[in-house]
Order: sequence, then structure tokens, then C-alpha cells
Amino acid sequence: MDSATLSAARTALRDAAPLVHCLTNTVVQTITANALLAVGAAPAMVDEPKEAAEFAAIASAVLVNVGTVHERTAAAMLLAARAASDAGTPWVLDPVAVGALGFRTSLAAELADLGPTVVRGNASEVMALAGAGAGGRGVDSTAAADDAVEAATALARRTGGVVAVSGPVDLITDGTRTVRVGGGDALLTRTTGAGCALGALVAAYVAVTDDPLTGAVAAHGHVALAAASAARTAAGPGSFAIAWLDALDAVTADDLAGADLREGP
Amino acid sequence: MDSATLSAARTALRDAAPLVHCLTNTVVQTITANALLAVGAAPAMVDEPKEAAEFAAIASAVLVNVGTVHERTAAAMLLAARAASDAGTPWVLDPVAVGALGFRTSLAAELADLGPTVVRGNASEVMALAGAGAGGRGVDSTAAADDAVEAATALARRTGGVVAVSGPVDLITDGTRTVRVGGGDALLTRTTGAGCALGALVAAYVAVTDDPLTGAVAAHGHVALAAASAARTAAGPGSFAIAWLDALDAVTADDLAGADLREGP
Amino acid sequence: MDSATLSAARTALRDAAPLVHCLTNTVVQTITANALLAVGAAPAMVDEPKEAAEFAAIASAVLVNVGTVHERTAAAMLLAARAASDAGTPWVLDPVAVGALGFRTSLAAELADLGPTVVRGNASEVMALAGAGAGGRGVDSTAAADDAVEAATALARRTGGVVAVSGPVDLITDGTRTVRVGGGDALLTRTTGAGCALGALVAAYVAVTDDPLTGAVAAHGHVALAAASAARTAAGPGSFAIAWLDALDAVTADDLAGADLREGP
Repeated sequence: MDSATLSAARTALRDAAPLVHCLTNTVVQTITANALLAVGAAPAMVDEPKEAAEFAAIASAVLVNVGTVHERTAAAMLLAARAASDAGTPWVLDPVAVGALGFRTSLAAELADLGPTVVRGNASEVMALAGAGAGGRGVDSTAAADDAVEAATALARRTGGVVAVSGPVDLITDGTRTVRVGGGDALLTRTTGAGCALGALVAAYVAVTDDPLTGAVAAHGHVALAAASAARTAAGPGSFAIAWLDALDAVTADDLAGADLREGP
Repeated sequence: MDSATLSAARTALRDAAPLVHCLTNTVVQTITANALLAVGAAPAMVDEPKEAAEFAAIASAVLVNVGTVHERTAAAMLLAARAASDAGTPWVLDPVAVGALGFRTSLAAELADLGPTVVRGNASEVMALAGAGAGGRGVDSTAAADDAVEAATALARRTGGVVAVSGPVDLITDGTRTVRVGGGDALLTRTTGAGCALGALVAAYVAVTDDPLTGAVAAHGHVALAAASAARTAAGPGSFAIAWLDALDAVTADDLAGADLREGP
Repeated sequence: MDSATLSAARTALRDAAPLVHCLTNTVVQTITANALLAVGAAPAMVDEPKEAAEFAAIASAVLVNVGTVHERTAAAMLLAARAASDAGTPWVLDPVAVGALGFRTSLAAELADLGPTVVRGNASEVMALAGAGAGGRGVDSTAAADDAVEAATALARRTGGVVAVSGPVDLITDGTRTVRVGGGDALLTRTTGAGCALGALVAAYVAVTDDPLTGAVAAHGHVALAAASAARTAAGPGSFAIAWLDALDAVTADDLAGADLREGP
């Protein structure tokens, strides 16, 4: 994955301003929308079952995040994911806290069977979704990204898509190729919704790139660069979140070419 | 609309601290509440059908925003709008993404028939609600405010209220008189919920002014002045949103007298 | 309550990083999660009835806040509160706007009968829950904390827990001992969710202290110190909220030992 490819993805995102339909948890809707606006995409949150499929069909990409899922939104998520799959629209599954709780674990398995373009989660969640672990403690992973390398690879082969595992170093695989993304900052883990917003940025990037692995890597590199930049000026977790949004906006195509990537198994 | 009238509205808002009952979308509830607190109003979000009418009857004004509406909240919105109309309490309708999606388009038509004091939306939404357009792309307008001048005038005459169309220059009409409000800053469009919060500020202002056109213009002028001020110090969209809240608080009665208004057809 | 006890509570919170299960209103979920992360706790919001009891049983503490409650979340709250009580897990009840609205007033009475470890609210809410008042105006108290001293004492004796009443000076009682916490800043009342986030911090602290009165006092002292610190640099209510999150992170065990406490009836 060369630097010109990443630069081109950043340029394509600004030019296309993809509309990202987010069915996501209520804790992180605001920062998710603001992160999408900051990078140049357009957010819209629609989770009424009567509207979810209709809107997924006109969106550039769809995000399904089960963080605060309940019966109504679960129905909307299934409808949106099916509509996206039918329309050939890329969609991202974020299996928040899957493994720890029964209802969402069943739902996420059903969603995974619909073939998400990208699954993005932490190591515990990815291992649970792959059937290789019992899940973490809510949104916290109790494992490192590389602990999930086999589970991620197996899951990518099963869904036919990309699987991205977040951690101090992120691991992203399409079942054949694997890329690790470094950089970033631990303050990301102390900002609610930073990981969930990353899932939305993955959706935005896969909407404008031909290769989902490229889109997923570009989103992770973008977030990591912005986090490193924000950490240099932040006085704490509150000001970090604000500086991170400013920095998401500021990351240029040239900046993204300098993301900290490493390819290999 | 002279400057003394606007100054008096600002003073009245601080003195009365109107209680604004918001039935609004979950993406923007936080910034809506914070914007109301910043200008000196008191927010409360209550959208359970068993409570919506009860609360609308004790509030100073009601906001109905259909951004993330679903069956339960749709029922609550209808109950609150009816209770407000019955009590003579001013209420504002924000038809987010109406025209693009069927469920909310029907709902918004039903709400419009209840006679909102003010309708506030972008040009695509107002044209769709007036029956003059097919709607935009989610929350983004695909038309300029002035494209909606005929639709807004017709809609104002039909509802018997005021219609406000947001854009680089806002257009506000009661069907007879029309006022345009300039100033503001494009960063408002990169802050999720700035437009929705404006709807809530319209509700706060119409609660403290005799003439809804005055209230709507005052709210738009207030938001535009604060945006221009915030843009002078912001480093990006994240810090802009925070500076805008600070600036909403700082706008004085004298400041509001200097809002960029233009009357005429 | 000596300063060494408060210092020890702060240290225990950082060491234990308690997982706080929040069933709270959608307006304040983000700032609640960020406040918990800032002090060193771990937030998780789960309010689907199928998951609420399951998650409450694995959490370190539970927060039940009825701010935007509706039928589904009311069911989840009752299940979570019962599961917490059965498991001996501390839980906090925040009776937002109780007294002003019928549905939540009945629900809060039912929740109070389940024996919350701490009830935290403003004077109007506490008096309404104790049966001594008619409630305020939404989230605003129409009474001072000390007006609620008899109601708080009676309520604490009835629930067998602690009752904390927020105001310019907070009043916290277990029915026998009473502590008042000063400091803080009026900007807290102009930041949506600051009081609700305080309820979550009470839950985090009671998870790591043997004595709920100590936990409740520590949380109130922590919030007040952070508010006073944030007010020194804030330019308005927007920047105050951000600085407050930074300051919540920065409060040390030594700082907390210097909280402004006064014991006595």
C-alpha cells in the first residue's frame, strides 16, 4: 500500500463528500457526526425501521454500530444492512461489546452473515464475533490487537470483507494481506466515541476507494495522525477531543501519505 | 424591524429564561441544550408520549425536530404540538430531511397542519414541506435559501405562522413581510446540530416576543453574530463549536441591534 | 470525614477503574461517559431490557437516571436496579424532573423502594421523591439544597442509603451524618449534564469505597474542585465544559483532601 494510494483516498474523500448513513449508539452520535463533517463527509442518522432501508439505498455508505442497540434499532440495522448489500453499497459493522452480552452477540452474528465490507472492533469483540473468545468488559478490550490476528483473518475470509482490529497498533486484514497502523495516542481511549467515529470514517473512506483494505487503512491512518497532532496541544481528555476534531479537518493528502504503516503477516 | 426591537428581545430572553421543551433528534440534544443554556434559556427534553403533552403545557415554548424520529417519538411530537396549540404556547417545527424519506414527510405534513408558530429548515426541506420540491440529501440542502422564497411564503400563509429558511443568507417570512439575515460563517455547516440548535433558539425567542417574525429574526441574528465571532478564534470545526457556545452567551442586547438584516421581498 | 479518607477514595478510583453501567438520558450520555473516563472509570451504556440485568450483574456500579425515560428504558431500569440490588452492587438513582411529571414520578417511587445506595438530585426532586414537595420546573430546582434537609434525611432513612442534594452548597446525608460540600462554580448549572455526570461519578466512587457517604462526598468534592479550576480559565459555558473534563482528570488524591467540606446537621 503505497503513499500515493493513501493520498488519493484523502483527496477522493474531500471531493466526493460521501453521505454516510449511521445507525449507531446514542452515546457517540454527536462526535461521529462531527468527525465525519471534519474530514469532509456528510453524516445522517436514521434508525426508524420504516426509513432505514430507504435511506441506506441512497447513502454512499452505511455504518452499523450496536453500542446501544435495542429491538427497534436492531430491526432497522438488519434492514439497512440488507439494503446496502443489495445495492452494492459498502457498509461497516462495529460489534461493540459483542461477546459480553447475549442479545447483541446474536444480532452481530446475523449481521456478519450479511457480508459487511468492513468489520471494525477491538480485539475482544473481533475474537467474540469470530467465535474465538468470550468478549471483553463492555467497550474495553481485554486483549491486544495482535492477539486477534488469527480470528481477524478467519473472520475476513468468512465475510469476504476486511476486518480491522483497533489497539495501540491497529491490525487490518482482508484475509490475505495484513497492514498494521501505528501512531495515534492513548488519549483516544479516554474520549468516548473515538473508536466508534473511526468506524464511521472507515465507511466514508470505503465509499471513495475501490479497495476496502485501502479505505480501512486510510481511515485508521487519518485518525492516528490527527490523534498524535491533538495530543501535542491538549491539556487533558476534554481538550483532546476538540483538538482531534480540528486535526481531522487539517490532515491533508500529503499528511496521510506519511501515516505509520507496516505490511506483513 | 428596528434595532431597538431586537435589543429588547435579547433583554427579554435573559430576563424570562424561558423553559423550552425540546422533542428533538438524539444527535443534537446536547448542543441544543447547551445553546439554550448559553443564551439564558432553560432546556428540557421529554419525548415519552405519556409525558409529552403534560410537559408541553407547562413549557414556555416547544420545539419539534424530526431528525431521528421513530414511532414512539412521532406520537409524542403530535401530542406535544397539539397541547402547545391548545394552550396557545408557541412551537417550532424543524422538518429535518423531509422530502427525502416517506415516514417523516407524512408526519411533518400532519404537524404543519397543526399550525406551528415557526417552521425552520433548509431550502430543500421547506420546499418539500410546501409541496414544491422533492427534498435534499439527508440534512443537506441542495438549494439556496432564496430558491425557497415562494415556497416559504406559501407555507407561511398556509400555516398562519412564520417560515425561516437557513442558508448563507437566511430568509424569514410571515407570508407578508420578509427579512434576510446575513453574517454567520460556513463553519456552522460543519458543526452537527448548529441548525437544529437554531430551531431551539427560535422557540426561546418566540416565547418572549409578541411577534413571531421578530422572535425568529432575533434568533437567526443571534446565531449569526455568535458564529462570526467564533470563526475569528477557531482553529477548526471542533474548536469552532465550543467558541460558538461561548459567543452565544456573550451576545448582548447592543450586539444584537447590529445584526445584518435586510427587509424586502 | 477526614482528608486521608478522601485521598484514599481518589487513589482507589484510579486503581480500580470501576465499570459503571449507566442507564441515563440521551442528552447527557456523552458528557457522562467522558466524565467517567476523565476521572479514571470505565463507562458503558446498556438500556435494552434483554441486556440490562445481565450487564448490571457484571458492572462495578449502576446509574439509573430518568431524564428521558420512556417505556422500554423504564423496564430496563427496573431490571438493572433489581439485578444490582440482588448482586450487592451499589447503584445510584437520579430522579430528574420527578414531581413535575406523572410517569417518571411513579417510576422513581418504585425505584426508590428497591433501595438505591445513593439518591442524587436537586432539592425539588429530592423533596418530591420524599413526598414533601410538588417538584420543580424540569431539571431546574425551585428550592435551595438546605430546604430539602428534612426531606433528604427522611428519604435516606427510608431507603437505607445516602441522599445527596445538589446546589451552590451540596447537602449529603445518610440519615444520621450530614456533610455539606462547597466550592464549585455556577457555570456547572449552565453545562448540560454536569449534574447527571455527577450522579455517574457518585456511582464510580461508591464502587470503590466501603462507606457510601464517603463515596458520595468524594464525588461531590471532586466535581466542585474541578469546576472551580475550570472556571478560572473558561471564556464562557462552552469552554467551561471542556476545561471541566480536563480538570476532572487532573484532580489528585492530594487535591481531593482539600475539598471544601463541613460536617454537622
